Amino acid sequence: MDMTPPPGSTRKAFYDAIRAQHMTPLWEVLHALVPQQPATPCVPAFWAYAQVRPYLMESGQLITAEEAVRRVLILENPGLQGQSAITQSLYAGLQLILPGEVAPSHRHTQSALRFVVEGKGAYTAVDGERTTMTPGDFIITPSWTWHDHGHEGTQTNGEPVVWLDGLDIPMLRFFDAGFAENHSERSQPVTKAEGTSYQRYGANMLPVRYNAPFGQTSPIFSYPYDRTREALHTLERQAPVDDWDGVKLRYVNPATGGSPMPTMATFMQRLPAGFDGKAWRQTDGAIFSVVEGHGSVTISHGAGQQVFEFGPRDHFVIPSWHTASLRSAPGCVLFSFSDRPVHQALGIHREERLS
Amino acid sequence: MDMTPPPGSTRKAFYDAIRAQHMTPLWEVLHALVPQQPATPCVPAFWAYAQVRPYLMESGQLITAEEAVRRVLILENPGLQGQSAITQSLYAGLQLILPGEVAPSHRHTQSALRFVVEGKGAYTAVDGERTTMTPGDFIITPSWTWHDHGHEGTQTNGEPVVWLDGLDIPMLRFFDAGFAENHSERSQPVTKAEGTSYQRYGANMLPVRYNAPFGQTSPIFSYPYDRTREALHTLERQAPVDDWDGVKLRYVNPATGGSPMPTMATFMQRLPAGFDGKAWRQTDGAIFSVVEGHGSVTISHGAGQQVFEFGPRDHFVIPSWHTASLRSAPGCVLFSFSDRPVHQALGIHREERLS
Amino acid sequence: MDMTPPPGSTRKAFYDAIRAQHMTPLWEVLHALVPQQPATPCVPAFWAYAQVRPYLMESGQLITAEEAVRRVLILENPGLQGQSAITQSLYAGLQLILPGEVAPSHRHTQSALRFVVEGKGAYTAVDGERTTMTPGDFIITPSWTWHDHGHEGTQTNGEPVVWLDGLDIPMLRFFDAGFAENHSERSQPVTKAEGTSYQRYGANMLPVRYNAPFGQTSPIFSYPYDRTREALHTLERQAPVDDWDGVKLRYVNPATGGSPMPTMATFMQRLPAGFDGKAWRQTDGAIFSVVEGHGSVTISHGAGQQVFEFGPRDHFVIPSWHTASLRSAPGCVLFSFSDRPVHQALGIHREERLS
Amino acid sequence: MDMTPPPGSTRKAFYDAIRAQHMTPLWEVLHALVPQQPATPCVPAFWAYAQVRPYLMESGQLITAEEAVRRVLILENPGLQGQSAITQSLYAGLQLILPGEVAPSHRHTQSALRFVVEGKGAYTAVDGERTTMTPGDFIITPSWTWHDHGHEGTQTNGEPVVWLDGLDIPMLRFFDAGFAENHSERSQPVTKAEGTSYQRYGANMLPVRYNAPFGQTSPIFSYPYDRTREALHTLERQAPVDDWDGVKLRYVNPATGGSPMPTMATFMQRLPAGFDGKAWRQTDGAIFSVVEGHGSVTISHGAGQQVFEFGPRDHFVIPSWHTASLRSAPGCVLFSFSDRPVHQALGIHREERLS
Repeated sequence: MDMTPPPGSTRKAFYDAIRAQHMTPLWEVLHALVPQQPATPCVPAFWAYAQVRPYLMESGQLITAEEAVRRVLILENPGLQGQSAITQSLYAGLQLILPGEVAPSHRHTQSALRFVVEGKGAYTAVDGERTTMTPGDFIITPSWTWHDHGHEGTQTNGEPVVWLDGLDIPMLRFFDAGFAENHSERSQPVTKAEGTSYQRYGANMLPVRYNAPFGQTSPIFSYPYDRTREALHTLERQAPVDDWDGVKLRYVNPATGGSPMPTMATFMQRLPAGFDGKAWRQTDGAIFSVVEGHGSVTISHGAGQQVFEFGPRDHFVIPSWHTASLRSAPGCVLFSFSDRPVHQALGIHREERLS
Repeated sequence: MDMTPPPGSTRKAFYDAIRAQHMTPLWEVLHALVPQQPATPCVPAFWAYAQVRPYLMESGQLITAEEAVRRVLILENPGLQGQSAITQSLYAGLQLILPGEVAPSHRHTQSALRFVVEGKGAYTAVDGERTTMTPGDFIITPSWTWHDHGHEGTQTNGEPVVWLDGLDIPMLRFFDAGFAENHSERSQPVTKAEGTSYQRYGANMLPVRYNAPFGQTSPIFSYPYDRTREALHTLERQAPVDDWDGVKLRYVNPATGGSPMPTMATFMQRLPAGFDGKAWRQTDGAIFSVVEGHGSVTISHGAGQQVFEFGPRDHFVIPSWHTASLRSAPGCVLFSFSDRPVHQALGIHREERLS
Repeated sequence: MDMTPPPGSTRKAFYDAIRAQHMTPLWEVLHALVPQQPATPCVPAFWAYAQVRPYLMESGQLITAEEAVRRVLILENPGLQGQSAITQSLYAGLQLILPGEVAPSHRHTQSALRFVVEGKGAYTAVDGERTTMTPGDFIITPSWTWHDHGHEGTQTNGEPVVWLDGLDIPMLRFFDAGFAENHSERSQPVTKAEGTSYQRYGANMLPVRYNAPFGQTSPIFSYPYDRTREALHTLERQAPVDDWDGVKLRYVNPATGGSPMPTMATFMQRLPAGFDGKAWRQTDGAIFSVVEGHGSVTISHGAGQQVFEFGPRDHFVIPSWHTASLRSAPGCVLFSFSDRPVHQALGIHREERLS
Repeated sequence: MDMTPPPGSTRKAFYDAIRAQHMTPLWEVLHALVPQQPATPCVPAFWAYAQVRPYLMESGQLITAEEAVRRVLILENPGLQGQSAITQSLYAGLQLILPGEVAPSHRHTQSALRFVVEGKGAYTAVDGERTTMTPGDFIITPSWTWHDHGHEGTQTNGEPVVWLDGLDIPMLRFFDAGFAENHSERSQPVTKAEGTSYQRYGANMLPVRYNAPFGQTSPIFSYPYDRTREALHTLERQAPVDDWDGVKLRYVNPATGGSPMPTMATFMQRLPAGFDGKAWRQTDGAIFSVVEGHGSVTISHGAGQQVFEFGPRDHFVIPSWHTASLRSAPGCVLFSFSDRPVHQALGIHREERLS
């Protein structure tokens, strides 16, 4: 329904007059501003690793990690071209580091997660402590904390390392709260032995005088995959499997039980062999990274429907309030993240499980 | 610095190739995505009520409240044209209701505040209870709660009523979480006497079995100006006056001590006569409505500086991380609101008091 | 069932032997230690003001406020003789101040409430601010905050003032956490005008930079009865009356929505004329002070039952897990307090509403 | 100072008269009720395992686990004789189970911890899941949750198993909130495989739909020693050692970051070889169980001082506000627990680190 008033009409003249005063009539746009249900510009999208990987490797020839600062190919939602966003509020990209490279140290108010996709030999350094990156590990770099990374392998014996980066870049841009700083040194000094933060905070214990050094953000920098995998496999064998999610756990900040970062929730789930999941929809659009196994996701919205067949290291996005369901014949493991904690903090999270 | 690679270059070819895969190189946009400090498109803006009011009254001739659903002139930030936004995350507008009119009942997940600017005789109905609107009153319509309004005067003896609407419309759009519904009846049935919710929740007491009927949102619908004004005037006389803010109080949800709505903080402040405030800046852009008195606000950003002289019913906006200071020769009262609770929930709020 | 082993038996010898090692067998006392339901030594008790008042006045002849420090007749539960306790965890007493008297300033980690029972002319000073005491007012002296009081009347024109004191004395003794200090001056200096704290914190608003000056304790020192009474009477007329409680509100700390003090909940309730309440029981024993009107309380436990007919200024206690119900022919107003917030913090609160 | 009035005096007559009304004068007891600092009846005490163990084994001859329900020798503070308490608010005992025995299933509102001291082959069952008990493991049985235990060994090849029981029995008695029930079956049915709860809740992840099945109590039933020990030893090597505590961690409820049970905090600490700790005092009295190594604790109060030399499986108690310091030549590991979370919830916790 076009409500634009015809040229020469009284309303048109009024609209022109108030526009000069930086005013505009609500009644012409009310339906768009207050929609009956979410009308996201985001669309379902899929990045097959087999197609993506050659470009990633080519980027390694094109630019060094040091020059690029962060050598990342952004996964851009086809519905959000030019916005460097995978959903309206989140950013995702695949980052490459080659043996012997070092990426410079900086800090920013954007929170970041790293989910290791491929390769060994790289490390992430956060607040003076280096963590070795292994596929399946979930690593965070908290808001306003110095971080850098590098690859300790050599060009002759090392292998490229790739991870999924997830950040709240669009959110910080939207809220006009982005700050950044470069470290005075290329790599920050290493002041703590590897594993210190995990032993201090990750054993279901906390220091007696715990003082929340990273605010609402988890003091655990790395959640190793071997621990996560063991939990999922035990639960698959021993506990009831959810009809929608299979066995799905969310990572927590052990000091609060909340999400590891205030802007992003992260999950790992296992679909058992033969899983044929029921459909659901939720307001938080979610990004998936396939860790192990094969399967498919069916995403439908209005009349449209898309099915993505996925295997290890593939990535896909399910937009807000799109109906989705998961299947897996051989069983699989999926990492995912979304902005759910923000929806919950704002009291606007909705979820519907269809049967 | 233009980093766009020249046509025909290897990088240009690479960028074209990956664009087809919905990928884009981070290193070309990193500085824009992770800025050193907030680079908001928002600009300072001022709406003098003397200029705005005639258009508001003209809108009353142009369209009925019923046809318009909500007869509002949106205050649109000159830096955000076409976005119906006064800051990137917030919406503001001036709404008019005329004697005898009724605006239809609906509900939506957007949270809304009403700050009464002019006139008597109107009411807002929320969840079965009507509240009479008096200038200076701060009224809320909680997320997903039925609300409507009307004017009980007659065309012969009534006067127009105007209020400032503040909503989180851009935020709900950004997070893809907007839902809305129209009531089956034009006005919702009145089921509670006026004043019930204020007596039940507003006397520094709560029902023994308080069950958070509006989630994180305050159960008080209306914070009357006479109560607020008394508090401010007492404190101006008896308590220390802050060098930046004068006497400034924030409205609270009495069940939590948090903001009345999870997405917006609201404030009322009194600048004593002769106040010459120090400058500050904060990440949350703020919208002001002048209640009483006259004064000026100085807003500077980079090399630029603007001064707005204000009087009763004028409105202005201070964008994120712009330096601002307030002055008032005769003394004045200012209402304001911002998205500060979101910044705080996300751990991204910054504020700097300059001396 | 007497499980004490006979003299000369093996068990007896064993018990004697381990007693010397400061050990004792659990199995002899398990049933007492882990009872099937609360087995409180507390009993229902009633103090008729007509009987109590003459003694209070006599105490005014016997000792000065200054000598007594606090001239209080402790209401001691008949089941807890010698323990200065009205329930196992709480202390209650009636305090008298005469015209012209001053009681010295001190502070202690015990939290205290004052509920004004009779008379005008007295004040309580807390943290540099004096509050005039009027019957029905609920006043607090937060943990570790300087407080004193006095009576500004003269012996010729003044009247005695009496209030109910409620403290967590037994609780602090039990947890070994009592500290106290006397002020270097008889009365602390007055540094704030009366009403400052109520205007600053009591108008459903809080200072922008609220910093919890009294920790978990409310920054409002006095909750005036006229405000409370208005709320109760409005709700009695306009809102549903609860079958067990009539109209019952709990006082809150406006900064948290929790109880005014972390150890005690306080309530005011109105029973409408003709109220014949249903019975309930709860784990928190409660102390009542009758404000207005007449009525009766029926308390039963096991086979026993007691009925107390009450009028203004009478006091009574309902012990833990005793079944109670309230009646009032003319209507009445009751103040009460208990240690409910502790039960809730410890996850041990139980309540049962019988029908 | 004896303030008791002489027989025949006016005051004595007054006291007698009001005693009949269940009243007593505050001014006679004010100093005792509001002490300048904690005046606990608790005294320092030490139980050498070499002395205790023979009695524990003798109790195994004297009574069966089934008859005793819980075969425990209570560690009773010499200052609290007859109260079955190790501090005023806490209970501690040593429990024995012999090969082949089963202790019946029950539940109660008292929260309980088990810290395994000696032996293998026993299990604790909580909410349908059995957990094997290994020395150093910290196990909980949440309030109002079915629990039982047994020993799967045989009389020929099994060994006795002993653990420290810690409960909030005196606290529940004080607050009159104790409820208990016996299970209809001797052992509750096993419905979950061992390790399920640890995998579900202990991997720094939580189920997506976590619903706090045990309220404020941790959903992890067993915190295994091998995990705790690894954390302590890593931190001893890699992180700064605290001058008072060595390396000290507190167990947490991973869903909240709070203590595993709302009434008790639990800690494990490692003193490195040659540790000579500084002195401290705190309001929460604490009970220690020595896990590994040898050392000494010096406890002083007023003029008195006691030194306990300790080795594996010894137990001791440091009362409230007693000054204590720890030393260890060879290095040692200490488990401890106190009622600190209650002190913190009530806003009455104090701690002083002396230098």
